[in-house]
Amino acid sequence: MKTVNLTINQLLDQIAQFTDPETEGVTRLLYDEHWIEAQKFLLELGQMIGLDSGFDQVGNVILTKFGTANDESAITIGSHIDSVVNAGKYDGIYGVATAIIAIKELLAEYGAPKKTIQILSFCEEEGSRFPFTFTGSKNLINQLPDDIYQLVDKTGESFEEAQAKAIYALKNIFPLVSALPPTAYAEIHIEQGPVLERLNKEIGIVTAIVAQKRFTVTINGKNNHAGTTPMWLRVDPLKQAVKLIHQLEVIALKIGEPFVFTVGEMAISPNASNVIPEQAKFSIDIRHTDEKELLFFEELIYKLAKTQMQELAGLEIKIDKWTDVGTEEMNETYIEALQAICKEKQLSFHLMPSGAGHDTQIVNRIAPTALLFVPSVDGISHSPQEFTTTENLEKGKTVFKQFIYDLAY
Amino acid sequence: MKTVNLTINQLLDQIAQFTDPETEGVTRLLYDEHWIEAQKFLLELGQMIGLDSGFDQVGNVILTKFGTANDESAITIGSHIDSVVNAGKYDGIYGVATAIIAIKELLAEYGAPKKTIQILSFCEEEGSRFPFTFTGSKNLINQLPDDIYQLVDKTGESFEEAQAKAIYALKNIFPLVSALPPTAYAEIHIEQGPVLERLNKEIGIVTAIVAQKRFTVTINGKNNHAGTTPMWLRVDPLKQAVKLIHQLEVIALKIGEPFVFTVGEMAISPNASNVIPEQAKFSIDIRHTDEKELLFFEELIYKLAKTQMQELAGLEIKIDKWTDVGTEEMNETYIEALQAICKEKQLSFHLMPSGAGHDTQIVNRIAPTALLFVPSVDGISHSPQEFTTTENLEKGKTVFKQFIYDLAY
Repeated sequence: MKTVNLTINQLLDQIAQFTDPETEGVTRLLYDEHWIEAQKFLLELGQMIGLDSGFDQVGNVILTKFGTANDESAITIGSHIDSVVNAGKYDGIYGVATAIIAIKELLAEYGAPKKTIQILSFCEEEGSRFPFTFTGSKNLINQLPDDIYQLVDKTGESFEEAQAKAIYALKNIFPLVSALPPTAYAEIHIEQGPVLERLNKEIGIVTAIVAQKRFTVTINGKNNHAGTTPMWLRVDPLKQAVKLIHQLEVIALKIGEPFVFTVGEMAISPNASNVIPEQAKFSIDIRHTDEKELLFFEELIYKLAKTQMQELAGLEIKIDKWTDVGTEEMNETYIEALQAICKEKQLSFHLMPSGAGHDTQIVNRIAPTALLFVPSVDGISHSPQEFTTTENLEKGKTVFKQFIYDLAY
Repeated sequence: MKTVNLTINQLLDQIAQFTDPETEGVTRLLYDEHWIEAQKFLLELGQMIGLDSGFDQVGNVILTKFGTANDESAITIGSHIDSVVNAGKYDGIYGVATAIIAIKELLAEYGAPKKTIQILSFCEEEGSRFPFTFTGSKNLINQLPDDIYQLVDKTGESFEEAQAKAIYALKNIFPLVSALPPTAYAEIHIEQGPVLERLNKEIGIVTAIVAQKRFTVTINGKNNHAGTTPMWLRVDPLKQAVKLIHQLEVIALKIGEPFVFTVGEMAISPNASNVIPEQAKFSIDIRHTDEKELLFFEELIYKLAKTQMQELAGLEIKIDKWTDVGTEEMNETYIEALQAICKEKQLSFHLMPSGAGHDTQIVNRIAPTALLFVPSVDGISHSPQEFTTTENLEKGKTVFKQFIYDLAY
């Protein structure tokens, strides 16, 4: 592997080869053989460019350049190495690759930094193998719960077993280390949405990662013959679901950006064209940077459902909230610094919330954080069609590198 | 089998024993072993009460009492012997049982009729085994298409094979005959809906069998991340489906009875709570006695869909109409005669459309017809919970028997 003039795209292409060849695009799940090979590759790459290469007990790869100030904490940068099934080659790994190349270039141009910098290639963020997310960043901030070790994947293998095998494979070659406490955290990621492209902006500066609530709504009515049951005698859960979603959509559009309201799952039973359904079940996903707006909408859901039940005897609406995560605000000083850098580099930028979750939101619990986006063509992500132009990948790196320079040198 | 004082309920219970014992309730599909046993039972019962018992080439059982006038056509009465999977003991067979008991009683009370009466136990009406309905009544009116013989059931057995086996089993004992051309047709059936019970009426006199159209609506939008795609950039097929169904429902309720509008099937893909769907697909079932109203609503569906497509770039709505059946009006003289009988017998009645299809609508193409309903408890049908009280079964027979007497004696 030559590291001279290594571009981000070349690095992304190399890492994209560590994938389950039986799937389309990239599939690299926590602790699988492709994941192990990818982390090994990064450990070796770190060594080649003069970084201390090690990994922690959950398999986060930690590449450290100790600063001349001999501090015992570190400016932390990075993103995650794992992917969803049939992913693209950018999500997560673009942040890891950019961090490595930025540090490689900074070292070549300016020598050792004053402050210690550590690059994290987080073991897991997506939750695609085990039903748990942000394993890597939660371990960094010492908030990993004990009960994840009993989780099993769909083949029945436990988190504990899978981790033991992966750690064993890495241990043969590299040291087990602990990350330094982060004094700051910065991450760059593809947008995974269409906003930057639509607004024709080169850089997204994230102001906050949105609060999010998810619900399952189950509406029970009365299964009857579609021909012989007059409209006035029906207790039709699908029509009631339509009414509820329609009312919510009208309000959702009034609330405006950055609020989003999605019904992504829906099923009715018995699901026959000539039978009035017995049950309609659907998901609600709502997100906003303003937790008060989200609470208002949550209360609206309960209120409208209650009204519908009062208006139609025999109708039952059950609402189960299974996700409730608060807003994470990015550091204001960093947001200003990033704007200044964009202006200086003559790059167009857009201040925006992140509607998707990122490791940044976890690290934000204990350290000031910054999150940057580059445009995703057509807003596509979690797909082999995920794409960002080389030009935009490099522009992101330019801003990110300057930001790290300003923090560490 | 004793036939003296045989009640309808006793006869229904006996026929209900001819069922697939591995299913709940009654399951007697066209040409299966239970169907063969049931038709044999009816052929034997016909013989015992003095009727000429035979069956035609599709397995319709024909029980004939020749009239003293020696006419070459027949007043035809009956219903169907087949059931859906997990059916009750009333749908179809109540009409056959009532016809047999009414004729048995008329013969005992008044001797031979002037006009020939034939009872038909139609081989099939439900379409539960092969994808074809009204086989029995279509054969009676010589409108059975040739291409049904290649149809296969879910085990891969063809209509032709299944029929050959069943006919062979009946041929050993009973003669293969042809039905006489019907000069009139009368059928009594359970309502399969809740109207008579809700209105507290004993008899339903059907004025028309509704026209019916069925559609599959496929809406294609753009699959995107639920968190990162602003509402204004979405092409969300589920929200568009909700909008279309909601608009149609508002108009449907304004049209009023007997119009019914049902969405019984719905599926969205990829069907994940954090993904804006790519596609929403749903069925529309509309029925009305007035074909003009139905056409108005059909045109409304196309119009609203077109408007939605014009309003949102990237949205595609495809509408596939796969059922379009016209209204069948019952004979007016018979409707008046049935009202007079109800009044005379001091039975409450309700003039109503039939929202479900019945063999009557087929025979109506070539002969004047009458269709009577008795109340279904809770409107339930096509279920083991299907139930009509003994009292109401008997009241139905009283009216039916008088109607046949008036026609044939």
